[in-house]
Amino acid sequence: MASGTRELTVDLGERSYPIYIGTGLIAQLGEKFAERGFPVKSPILLVTDSAVEGLYASAVEESLRARGYTVARAVVPSGEASKSLEMLDTLVEQALKAGLDRKSTVIALGGGVVGDLAGFVAASYMRGVRFVQIPTTILAHDSSVGGKVAVNHRLAKNIIGAFHQPEFVLYDLDTLASLPMREVRAGLSEVIKHGLIWNAEFVAWCDDNAERLLGLDPDALGYALYEGCKVKSIVVSRDERENDLRAILNLGHTIGHALEAVAGYGELLHGEAIAIGMVGSARLAGRFGYAADIEETTERIFRKFGLPVRIPESCPTDEIMSAMLHDKKFSEGNMVFVVPTAIGSVEIRRDVPSAWVTDIVNGLREGK
Amino acid sequence: MASGTRELTVDLGERSYPIYIGTGLIAQLGEKFAERGFPVKSPILLVTDSAVEGLYASAVEESLRARGYTVARAVVPSGEASKSLEMLDTLVEQALKAGLDRKSTVIALGGGVVGDLAGFVAASYMRGVRFVQIPTTILAHDSSVGGKVAVNHRLAKNIIGAFHQPEFVLYDLDTLASLPMREVRAGLSEVIKHGLIWNAEFVAWCDDNAERLLGLDPDALGYALYEGCKVKSIVVSRDERENDLRAILNLGHTIGHALEAVAGYGELLHGEAIAIGMVGSARLAGRFGYAADIEETTERIFRKFGLPVRIPESCPTDEIMSAMLHDKKFSEGNMVFVVPTAIGSVEIRRDVPSAWVTDIVNGLREGK
Repeated sequence: MASGTRELTVDLGERSYPIYIGTGLIAQLGEKFAERGFPVKSPILLVTDSAVEGLYASAVEESLRARGYTVARAVVPSGEASKSLEMLDTLVEQALKAGLDRKSTVIALGGGVVGDLAGFVAASYMRGVRFVQIPTTILAHDSSVGGKVAVNHRLAKNIIGAFHQPEFVLYDLDTLASLPMREVRAGLSEVIKHGLIWNAEFVAWCDDNAERLLGLDPDALGYALYEGCKVKSIVVSRDERENDLRAILNLGHTIGHALEAVAGYGELLHGEAIAIGMVGSARLAGRFGYAADIEETTERIFRKFGLPVRIPESCPTDEIMSAMLHDKKFSEGNMVFVVPTAIGSVEIRRDVPSAWVTDIVNGLREGK
Repeated sequence: MASGTRELTVDLGERSYPIYIGTGLIAQLGEKFAERGFPVKSPILLVTDSAVEGLYASAVEESLRARGYTVARAVVPSGEASKSLEMLDTLVEQALKAGLDRKSTVIALGGGVVGDLAGFVAASYMRGVRFVQIPTTILAHDSSVGGKVAVNHRLAKNIIGAFHQPEFVLYDLDTLASLPMREVRAGLSEVIKHGLIWNAEFVAWCDDNAERLLGLDPDALGYALYEGCKVKSIVVSRDERENDLRAILNLGHTIGHALEAVAGYGELLHGEAIAIGMVGSARLAGRFGYAADIEETTERIFRKFGLPVRIPESCPTDEIMSAMLHDKKFSEGNMVFVVPTAIGSVEIRRDVPSAWVTDIVNGLREGK
């Protein structure tokens, strides 16, 4: 590994796996495959999207071929629409034609969409083959930990999927240089979320290092992704199948998902929607009588990172409320909120009066 | 449970589950759900096929409704073509419309096709919900143990799937009365296979009780299904993910799968094809110098059960050989055979000369 590479283990018993974070890592991919005993005879399927292919696919393939591996490339259109059963069908066909066997590996090279889709291919092809993630966005630091993979149905997002852990995650920071600034900010929103639910010191560090992070300073970014992945990994290790604790990862998501749905997917980036949602959750904390600095700190830090903290005019309150009631995260009809009890700590509440939620949504308008 | 009900536990650690085998069990389904704490608030999806629906779906629903459960019925066309991604899409839509949540259950009421399809819906809907199997064929005793679920791709059978264990299996012997005689015989072929790989005494018992079994005597059938499930369950417990031992379950399948493919799916029933395959494997045993009684016993018992022991004329040797080389069960290009070393015991061989196989296939012709 290059100097300065950070390594983190996601501890899931026999399904444990490492995340490598650093620069120049793609060039070392073939070495990693060889070290870990991936069989050279079994072909690899590299899944990427039309936006990422031209940037990094050749480098990935060269690194693997230099170690004797055979790689077939499958390119899907960039965007959420590729997370479909039709695309699963297409990728399985490509896997079959490339001769993938039970000892083969599917690699996801891209952001969350590619990770979720390729991960579900890996989970279901021959009832499960090896999976390796090479995230090329900041947001994907979140989806690369925990093994949640899925495709969408036209009636619901992420409704068809599996828990399928990767063999390892290779986070090459060089790939982040090609990210649009808006996606950098939105990705950092999830990084900060991991601080807000678990680690107050890390929130303070993000606050102090906003400029370095927004400037994609490799050392700052490497550290932030390491800490963000670490929080997620601790939570996931304790609750792999999302029975209880894992729900805390949904801070800001109850309002955030509703905003994404009402604004129309793609209008608000996920990280933007949950930034607004986290400000809403911080206001809920106030209603429950938790310290007032939660709201102030939460809102200030997201403003500092150039993230939205107010609901767009295009999203009427009644539509937001209705979307929240239909979110699949609500079990048995109750609205579930993750509420901060302090910076760096949260609790799950199923007793939030819907009048409070309406108030808070109404209050999160420009000028208020 | 009714008197005479047999219970067997498939031992898979925290994924262990019971198989109940007996008469009158469907009427007790609701009770089983209640006993095991399945939440009444979470709707159930009952998946069945057009052949089985009219016979047992109402009884299943009544038993559940009597205990306060909500059940939606999903009926797929009878036959292998229903094991498709399109049908998965349709069933997920029905699950969503019925309001299935994470604590819901998908029930498979039918044979292997319904079990595989509904099982994959249960494995992937919301990344996995509860699954209950109510097999209505003898053959399904095999697929109801071990958690292998899948759909087909137009280029390959069972290529998209998962390992997803049921909560329990309810084997109501009354449902077997509606089976066509040809399917009874073919189902018993897999039962006998379980004896041949693991339990010589059980093979002798089947030999002695052929008439009772073919006459669907409930006590004989209950015992045979219990013993068949037990062998499979021991093997699966020791090798859930099919790394090594589980391969012994493929006795007769190398030749059998090839015959199914060459004859055209549906021409030869699976149990018929593997009966012929097991006679072939017994002849291989002779080539390896194992006791001559293996071949004699194997062939005699399948004849006694009215199963085919010779390759149909419609299957040319070269096509069979070519189909064997393309079977996904061959890892890294070698033909893999399960070879009996005695009645009730087998070994995995990767060193079978293809000339032997050609000889044996040629020898398994009518009149030889």
